[in-house]
Amino acid sequence: MQVHAYAAPAAGQPLAPTTIERRDVGANDVLIQIQYAGICHSDIHTVNGDWGPQPFPVVPGHEIVGVVTEVGDGVTRHAVGDRVGVGCLVNSCRECVNCLKGEEQYCLNGAIGTYAATDRDGTTTQGGYSTHVVVDADFVVSVPDGLDPAAAAPLLCAGITTYAPLRHWNAGPGKKVAVVGLGGLGHMAVKIAHALGAEVTVLSQSLKKQEDGLRLGADDYVATSDPEAMKALRSRFDLIINTVSASIDINAYLKLLAVDGTLVNVGAPPEPLPVNAMTLISGRRSFAGSAIGGIALTQEMLDFCAEHGLGAEIEVISADQVNEAYERVLASDVRYRFVIDTSTLGASA
Amino acid sequence: MQVHAYAAPAAGQPLAPTTIERRDVGANDVLIQIQYAGICHSDIHTVNGDWGPQPFPVVPGHEIVGVVTEVGDGVTRHAVGDRVGVGCLVNSCRECVNCLKGEEQYCLNGAIGTYAATDRDGTTTQGGYSTHVVVDADFVVSVPDGLDPAAAAPLLCAGITTYAPLRHWNAGPGKKVAVVGLGGLGHMAVKIAHALGAEVTVLSQSLKKQEDGLRLGADDYVATSDPEAMKALRSRFDLIINTVSASIDINAYLKLLAVDGTLVNVGAPPEPLPVNAMTLISGRRSFAGSAIGGIALTQEMLDFCAEHGLGAEIEVISADQVNEAYERVLASDVRYRFVIDTSTLGASA
Repeated sequence: MQVHAYAAPAAGQPLAPTTIERRDVGANDVLIQIQYAGICHSDIHTVNGDWGPQPFPVVPGHEIVGVVTEVGDGVTRHAVGDRVGVGCLVNSCRECVNCLKGEEQYCLNGAIGTYAATDRDGTTTQGGYSTHVVVDADFVVSVPDGLDPAAAAPLLCAGITTYAPLRHWNAGPGKKVAVVGLGGLGHMAVKIAHALGAEVTVLSQSLKKQEDGLRLGADDYVATSDPEAMKALRSRFDLIINTVSASIDINAYLKLLAVDGTLVNVGAPPEPLPVNAMTLISGRRSFAGSAIGGIALTQEMLDFCAEHGLGAEIEVISADQVNEAYERVLASDVRYRFVIDTSTLGASA
Repeated sequence: MQVHAYAAPAAGQPLAPTTIERRDVGANDVLIQIQYAGICHSDIHTVNGDWGPQPFPVVPGHEIVGVVTEVGDGVTRHAVGDRVGVGCLVNSCRECVNCLKGEEQYCLNGAIGTYAATDRDGTTTQGGYSTHVVVDADFVVSVPDGLDPAAAAPLLCAGITTYAPLRHWNAGPGKKVAVVGLGGLGHMAVKIAHALGAEVTVLSQSLKKQEDGLRLGADDYVATSDPEAMKALRSRFDLIINTVSASIDINAYLKLLAVDGTLVNVGAPPEPLPVNAMTLISGRRSFAGSAIGGIALTQEMLDFCAEHGLGAEIEVISADQVNEAYERVLASDVRYRFVIDTSTLGASA
């Protein structure tokens, strides 16, 4: 099946319209007519070659919402007409200890990314900037009716990436949570942490987005450029979610953790972060990392967001605005996520 | 009360015999006739000035075992004739959230070290290389009869520093624990982790101490200088206790953690350790630190060691061998802890 898509032809080249092949619908597969695809910063890193050589042409997109139009004979969990989502993973070994625990993202034999990855059958995966995608039903989640489909798309990456550590480290009533950076990931972290019942503080370079942060659910908003304000937060937080992928002075944030507190990076800066062991030792603090989330948890996150009326704050664009959107993401000029209306890609070829 | 002691007169100077003043026994105080004092690497760092200016003369020693010879009117938990121990702490505020949880080492108003610290009354604390010490009864623990008093002394620092993270991160049956470095701390970590029921691997630069490691309770012993052996340990451990205070390639060890595994530093290298966030993210791994342990946990540790017949491997020396012992510690020429027989300091002045 040939379908319309937007692809990067080579590293650093603008994305352009193209057609790609989707596989036949296998016994356990679902064919999805994509409606919306979010633009994640990692899409830009990938097509720019920041993360090494890629199997160009690359169709990015791992924040996918659409409707099921065909299912294989063996599929029971999804049916034609269902609204569904696909996130960052489309396959894993399903046999290793991590897969068996529902932590497919940590598959010991290599989780398969939604695009620019070599699938277990040797083909190259292509993502959601496309009209259709064929995905194994085990990696397709249900999008509850209560969610706006466009605002739900970014939940498949930005939502689960922040929901997973918030749940794993028990954000909830009585817990003090800080979110570093108020971007695509950060704004979802604020919404989710607030809905979980935690006390939420945004730590941002300036107070530029303070009004937004408070509206999204933050109880407090602090400029990290203010040394006195930072000092006043020493030993305060149980959990800090760092959504900033740039190299920040991580020790300045580790000091803000209470005893047994954890700072979790969900983005990976290109350079190693120098950590003062004494800062960890003096408060039994932890510096941790977390990658997206398993499929079952992704479903739980969508159900939670539907129950609490949470979606991403989005700007819907047409496919021909993708390159401009990339420029604006790099300039932090989006509040807070671009979502491509994939109907603008044209009908299936 | 004037008592004999060994003190460093200035930074980097050899220790020499002296006399120091001990305070009168207050209502909640215990006077201890010291029998044994362990030599901890941090004693050497302190008197060498590695950790900044110190209030010289400094009497080091925070691994103290002795016998109670006098108690204040308000003391109920210790009596004359009891064998007792004092570790790294002799005071704290007892009012902050951490003190109230029994985590006095993380006192928000500043835990008071056993030597070279300014106590809450403004006096300077002096440590265990001395014939007697007066300590608040709340910071004095009981040394069970089953423990050899000389071998028990190092438990007050090396024992609790390793016991605390092993307990906090649930080392026990079914858990794979690695210990980096087989020195004063490392050899206790191996003994305790084994007694807790964990599967224990020593990670050491070479196989030089392999026989010792296995005898102390390790199930496996791996040379970190062997790249193939290290590769074979990838994603293996639930917990790694890093007892090495030198700067090591921490990422090489973080990779050895399974999903949700934690590497705990109990020593602080002088330079920050560069951490690859992606190594943490790709396995929800944590890099943490842990400082000694609270008083109640120190008592639990001593009781545990008595129950399991655990003491440090020691070389007992006389006070006039202290400077030579320091040289040998710096050369890693001790298996595994020097303990000063403080009766060699002379009777109380």
